[in-house]
Amino acid sequence: MNAKRPRIRPDAKERAALTQLSPNAESSLEQAREGEAGVATGLDVLYARAVWSRLIEPGDAVAGALIGALGASSVLEMLADVDAPQQLETSAAAAGVDLNRRTLAAAVARWRHRLDRAATAADLDRAIASGLQLIGPECSLWPAALNDLGVHAPQLLWVRGEAAFLGLPSLAVVGARACTGYGANVTAELVDSAGTAGIAIVSGAAYGIDAVAHRAALASGAPTVAVLAGGADRAYPAAHESLLDRIAGAGAVCSEMVPGAAPTRWRFLQRNRSIAALATATLVTEAGTRSGSLNTAGHAAELGRDLGAVPGPVTSAASAGCHRLIREYGATLVSNSDELREFLGLDDAAGQLIDGIVDRQSASHRRVLDALPLRGIRSAGEVALAAGLGTEEARGVLAELEMLGCVARAGVPGDLARWRLVRRE
Amino acid sequence: MNAKRPRIRPDAKERAALTQLSPNAESSLEQAREGEAGVATGLDVLYARAVWSRLIEPGDAVAGALIGALGASSVLEMLADVDAPQQLETSAAAAGVDLNRRTLAAAVARWRHRLDRAATAADLDRAIASGLQLIGPECSLWPAALNDLGVHAPQLLWVRGEAAFLGLPSLAVVGARACTGYGANVTAELVDSAGTAGIAIVSGAAYGIDAVAHRAALASGAPTVAVLAGGADRAYPAAHESLLDRIAGAGAVCSEMVPGAAPTRWRFLQRNRSIAALATATLVTEAGTRSGSLNTAGHAAELGRDLGAVPGPVTSAASAGCHRLIREYGATLVSNSDELREFLGLDDAAGQLIDGIVDRQSASHRRVLDALPLRGIRSAGEVALAAGLGTEEARGVLAELEMLGCVARAGVPGDLARWRLVRRE
Repeated sequence: MNAKRPRIRPDAKERAALTQLSPNAESSLEQAREGEAGVATGLDVLYARAVWSRLIEPGDAVAGALIGALGASSVLEMLADVDAPQQLETSAAAAGVDLNRRTLAAAVARWRHRLDRAATAADLDRAIASGLQLIGPECSLWPAALNDLGVHAPQLLWVRGEAAFLGLPSLAVVGARACTGYGANVTAELVDSAGTAGIAIVSGAAYGIDAVAHRAALASGAPTVAVLAGGADRAYPAAHESLLDRIAGAGAVCSEMVPGAAPTRWRFLQRNRSIAALATATLVTEAGTRSGSLNTAGHAAELGRDLGAVPGPVTSAASAGCHRLIREYGATLVSNSDELREFLGLDDAAGQLIDGIVDRQSASHRRVLDALPLRGIRSAGEVALAAGLGTEEARGVLAELEMLGCVARAGVPGDLARWRLVRRE
Repeated sequence: MNAKRPRIRPDAKERAALTQLSPNAESSLEQAREGEAGVATGLDVLYARAVWSRLIEPGDAVAGALIGALGASSVLEMLADVDAPQQLETSAAAAGVDLNRRTLAAAVARWRHRLDRAATAADLDRAIASGLQLIGPECSLWPAALNDLGVHAPQLLWVRGEAAFLGLPSLAVVGARACTGYGANVTAELVDSAGTAGIAIVSGAAYGIDAVAHRAALASGAPTVAVLAGGADRAYPAAHESLLDRIAGAGAVCSEMVPGAAPTRWRFLQRNRSIAALATATLVTEAGTRSGSLNTAGHAAELGRDLGAVPGPVTSAASAGCHRLIREYGATLVSNSDELREFLGLDDAAGQLIDGIVDRQSASHRRVLDALPLRGIRSAGEVALAAGLGTEEARGVLAELEMLGCVARAGVPGDLARWRLVRRE
């Protein structure tokens, strides 16, 4: 069978594009999983995932189960077989995954219908033109939290901005599009509090609470991540084009849909599952009883993520959804920054009072501590600039201060690290 | 010993006063419990409780334990013994109650200090002048719910108005003195909803939420009960004199303190325990973090009573206490009338749709149903007046309609019954 099956592999131009879109893709081999179809390199797998990105709608559990069991490249190649449903059934069963022949036949039909390698080539070109990155589960930057979605997990993320931010400890802040001034103010206050504690803010870039959350994160200097229902290069809503530019500039905008893809009702609902999975915890700050944010909250609860909600006037329809989450879903009532910190499990008690230990610090320690704000986070480069030190020197001092318990990393690995003061209240 | 001990029994004038203050007191004998001290009649016991009312501060657990074990009259007479602490210790131990001699000596000293039979005679005169009733645990009108307080239960209630209302299914509605317009509006709406369902409203007649709750109950035609920290005849706050008159006119004003007693800080805290115990459930509609209503809520939780709280803007200090009750004390979040009905366990589902059965009703049935408001309660006399029937006839028809599931009693026994329509939503 293998001999007859046409290989679905990237051509030279596509390989070049993929290398540009995901610099370390080639190095991550997936030979073991791709045994039957022959050796598939990291680029082959990434290419297969890019093709899948176009074939499936988000959350396709059949694709998720097959790709999880057999590999993205192998399953894609089997699609070309005349007896693909039978082949897939047999291979999946051998891998311990039971899938009904009828289910597989329907899936193969819907996937084949969209198979268009020229369109995938165009997707890659468009991704390059828009400055996107491709992040698959084989990539070190892949946010492992998404794997909690199991067979419903995205197969690939198209990312605008810095993909490393997807893996940060984060808080999803979601809510009503038609938020009130009250909801906007409370959201901004709480996001500022989480942001200055080094927590990334994840949201959906929609009107209302989403936009307030992203803007407050940007204002606090915290990384923020927008997860879109359509293509990552497509501003939706269009009025948020400049906001999305700024989010991409200081954080990340991502989507599992190919560039240019339209947001649909289904994709919005599935996008919500990604927000809930990506974030460590989810907070609904204002929501009517039919708000899409309740869908996100439901996913968060299903995934066992911490779920919080901000109460409001019972006379405000925009708070009714939050009250329902507290009453019926056991959401934690969050009414101020202290309660948010408790909700997020942030605990400064283990830290040390800075003023108590500065006597033991060297001059460079003192200058680095002075360069960090009382609330907020800074990169090593920013600290170096403010402290009048070289960046490498500042990094070394920050590492020493970290061991002393005076500063803490906001959680990003390597050069992207952000630092904050550790205070004992 | 009995021979030497002076009997503390009411004289003829006091017996007359007691008979007037509690018409059925003489019929409730307590011979069994009063064995050692000889036969004490119902009037003797009631008199002893009136004396105790002046001797102890509310919640005196030593008095509660002794009186519970040995009887109000016996313990009072033992006070006169030279070796009262030893006598009390021995008698209590024989009844299975262990009380420390030192504790008893201190208690005897503080009680004797206030023993003044002339003052009690004056209390009775003042009670008669103010139109009070005396209700002790031996009285059929005694609200049994207070017994859940154990040794901390009141020994006697001085009641202005109709004591039968104390035993109704009821909701305590308490909250901030410095309530906001928001809190006042929400309180009034929820009280109206509970009141029209035939639930009595218990509160403390304080400024703010308490007053709103009483007024809304009066407006809805529901019985309302004010529990005061000072004497039941003493308007506190003074500005609520006319409000208290109206509460006494349509419900009841009660206190465990003797007439004219001043409200003190301790008595306020103990009054709160009585509110929590008297009511079937407690709802805090607005409360700052230091509101006395949180004390009431704490008692309700301790007593295993249902506890509810209304959320509000997190930016409002007047709602912070409610949020804390929801977060930390497991209070049920109540945001509207439906949720209040669910909280109160009210269920109309078992009722029948009136329109579906009127064909089977006689003319008098139809007229009585017409005489009941869609929301709200009426006495049989009021129904008779509106339906053009005699009161006894209206009572008979109401009883028939009750069996048919068309109307329901608000819960007061006998002539005080209030009736409401049973609707299937």
